[in-house]
Amino acid sequence: MPSRSEISYFGAGPAPLPTSVLERAASVLLNYENQGIGICEISHRSAAATKILEDAKSALAQLYDIPADYEILFLQGGGSGEFSAVVYNLVARWVEKRRLRIVAELGEGKDAEVLDKLKTAVRDELRLDYLVTGSWSLKASQEAARLVGKDQVNVAVDARKANDGKFGKIPSEAEWKPSSRPAFTYFCDNETVDGVEFPAFPSVLEGAGDDTPVVADMSSNFISRAVDVKKYGVIFGGAQKNVGNAGVTIVIVKKSLLTPMAAPTLLQSLSLPVGPVVFDWPTIAKNNSLYNTLPIFDVWVAGQVMQSLLDTYGAQKIAGQEKVANQKAELLYGVLDAHPAVYRVVPDKAARSRMNICFRVHGGDDAREKEFLAAAEKRGLTGLKGHRSVGGMRASNYNAVSLEAAQKLAQFLQDFAAGSA
Amino acid sequence: MPSRSEISYFGAGPAPLPTSVLERAASVLLNYENQGIGICEISHRSAAATKILEDAKSALAQLYDIPADYEILFLQGGGSGEFSAVVYNLVARWVEKRRLRIVAELGEGKDAEVLDKLKTAVRDELRLDYLVTGSWSLKASQEAARLVGKDQVNVAVDARKANDGKFGKIPSEAEWKPSSRPAFTYFCDNETVDGVEFPAFPSVLEGAGDDTPVVADMSSNFISRAVDVKKYGVIFGGAQKNVGNAGVTIVIVKKSLLTPMAAPTLLQSLSLPVGPVVFDWPTIAKNNSLYNTLPIFDVWVAGQVMQSLLDTYGAQKIAGQEKVANQKAELLYGVLDAHPAVYRVVPDKAARSRMNICFRVHGGDDAREKEFLAAAEKRGLTGLKGHRSVGGMRASNYNAVSLEAAQKLAQFLQDFAAGSA
Repeated sequence: MPSRSEISYFGAGPAPLPTSVLERAASVLLNYENQGIGICEISHRSAAATKILEDAKSALAQLYDIPADYEILFLQGGGSGEFSAVVYNLVARWVEKRRLRIVAELGEGKDAEVLDKLKTAVRDELRLDYLVTGSWSLKASQEAARLVGKDQVNVAVDARKANDGKFGKIPSEAEWKPSSRPAFTYFCDNETVDGVEFPAFPSVLEGAGDDTPVVADMSSNFISRAVDVKKYGVIFGGAQKNVGNAGVTIVIVKKSLLTPMAAPTLLQSLSLPVGPVVFDWPTIAKNNSLYNTLPIFDVWVAGQVMQSLLDTYGAQKIAGQEKVANQKAELLYGVLDAHPAVYRVVPDKAARSRMNICFRVHGGDDAREKEFLAAAEKRGLTGLKGHRSVGGMRASNYNAVSLEAAQKLAQFLQDFAAGSA
Repeated sequence: MPSRSEISYFGAGPAPLPTSVLERAASVLLNYENQGIGICEISHRSAAATKILEDAKSALAQLYDIPADYEILFLQGGGSGEFSAVVYNLVARWVEKRRLRIVAELGEGKDAEVLDKLKTAVRDELRLDYLVTGSWSLKASQEAARLVGKDQVNVAVDARKANDGKFGKIPSEAEWKPSSRPAFTYFCDNETVDGVEFPAFPSVLEGAGDDTPVVADMSSNFISRAVDVKKYGVIFGGAQKNVGNAGVTIVIVKKSLLTPMAAPTLLQSLSLPVGPVVFDWPTIAKNNSLYNTLPIFDVWVAGQVMQSLLDTYGAQKIAGQEKVANQKAELLYGVLDAHPAVYRVVPDKAARSRMNICFRVHGGDDAREKEFLAAAEKRGLTGLKGHRSVGGMRASNYNAVSLEAAQKLAQFLQDFAAGSA
């Protein structure tokens, strides 16, 4: 019957949350701010709920220094939901902008001609660029192809190609094949399954403006390092790794990308998909994320986690968390690298994730890896099994994994390699 | 600083949850089944999570006597998400079935001809029937029109027409104008905003088979009365009224409606919408609701609430809960009806919701209604304000509102009418 303090959990998500936040959560479940009802029971339209939402937005805005021309949205549907939402929203915007240009060229009242030209433009010019560097960006690109057709999706780089069909490195930017003016360029900043993280913002995407915005899935490295939000059109992430509970998704989107939007009837005429209203960013923004019932408890947890980073790191803000994350990752990679006869880190050194540390034990020998997991568990180190699609080990190093937990794991890695675990 | 026992909350959703469930929830948040990590932290793919999911499904199947040829799905996105999902899924199925019939008539290899005939069929035959009896079915019908075009949506009845432009009654079935073979007929079993509930399954829809399935939104009267699931193709509900937390949506769908499904490319050619993969029921069913990260805590709460009904009512199952719900509703309507000089129940007597009791005080006089709310609050009776779109009072009588709470409210209604509140 282990207590929380006896267990160090390294699962990839849902992931550990700060015990102090969970203790407060347990209390507000029953009675929120002495209202006599709990946080899951209060109305999402109450003043208390609005304050929870505003506090969470404010904490995130402070952590990331989010400029005023960005919206912070809370939605349901997870990262996978946003794979679709990105396409629905940014394609609708591309179409409407293109239509307005055609109308400006042809003049008003030539609807049939406009539609014809627009069809040609969609076929010849509409391109969605994806940098496929792991399982999640692959899934996102597949969803885009399902929604708009594969001819419109340009896989600007597939990291498996130069790597024996496996993910694990980020090809150099010189090898990428971007479209000339994509509706957006999409990448997954940290690939949870494959342990691959972009070391920095891609330099070829520097200066991409509103016409070719950059979209990043940061589900698994959200609020773990400084981000220059201005470089992105859209940043999104499911909350269930660094931020909070499964069930809420955060989208940071530049306001100028929320308009203009093509009408559903126009999209249908162009054989382009119309998304569900709950994924329509302009609608969600206009309703301050309360178009429909928002899981306020999950927003509260996210807000508490973000506020606790602000409290812990003070003026350093996200840079303080980044330093700790790096320190823990360096510690663990250091031990793994020090024992090459026992451990092999899976991804390329230049693309190693600070969040998901993927490695094999004794060349991936099944019996030895099981032995490793069993020995780890005896020391209260759990959640180390890799994703079912790739096997091996994965130590997730999210914000709520303490330095102490990382040190325990490092000690175990050392002992196991020395045969004394 | 009121405690839970001092407050009786009548909010329309999120709504009260049983204190015993919340107490257990507070404990499992920190440590689930002695794993040393909490329920929001465990993997959605762990054995523990699978058991939570199976237990919740099993409890619901028992409560409703759900036949084996139905699937129970858990999704994100709320009832509003399902407004869209219903359309995406059932239109894709209608199209594929229609295509197969055309291919059977024409023979293989005539793709262009098939597409032409299918376009005509979509235009002339594809109809989605909506019974619009309140704000939520209206919204669902509007979403359908946005997704597939308004010509395809047949509002078989608009309850406002025979009622001064306001919701509040259910017109007699003789007045409905159903399509001959709709892709589906949709209704909202209980209209939360307007206090209107179908007294029983509509008799004109009896015997509707797989070709013209019946879809019901039961978000706000879920597990509050017996339902003959066999009569429905789809039943769905957001959990945040009778079942649990905002953040999880339950869909009960007949397995035969999950196949065949038109390919996205075909839907695009027909100017029909392609939904997000997270709303694709066949994908969710195939993955046992774990296509992407499911908020397992919310599933656990729902499972606990449903199991507690089974424990409380034993062999009576849902009929036991129905009896109590009716008893509470009769008590409250009884007091309101007994004081016609002070109270006016808004909806028609034949369509009164057992779940959301909507009434006006002193003819809707603003000052008197505020006085009513303030006096109620003094007695610890909260959440009585009606929906912002219609005003007035609304006492929601969900499962977790105890008989004692209903009695307190009844006493207050009496005292206020007598001028002694």
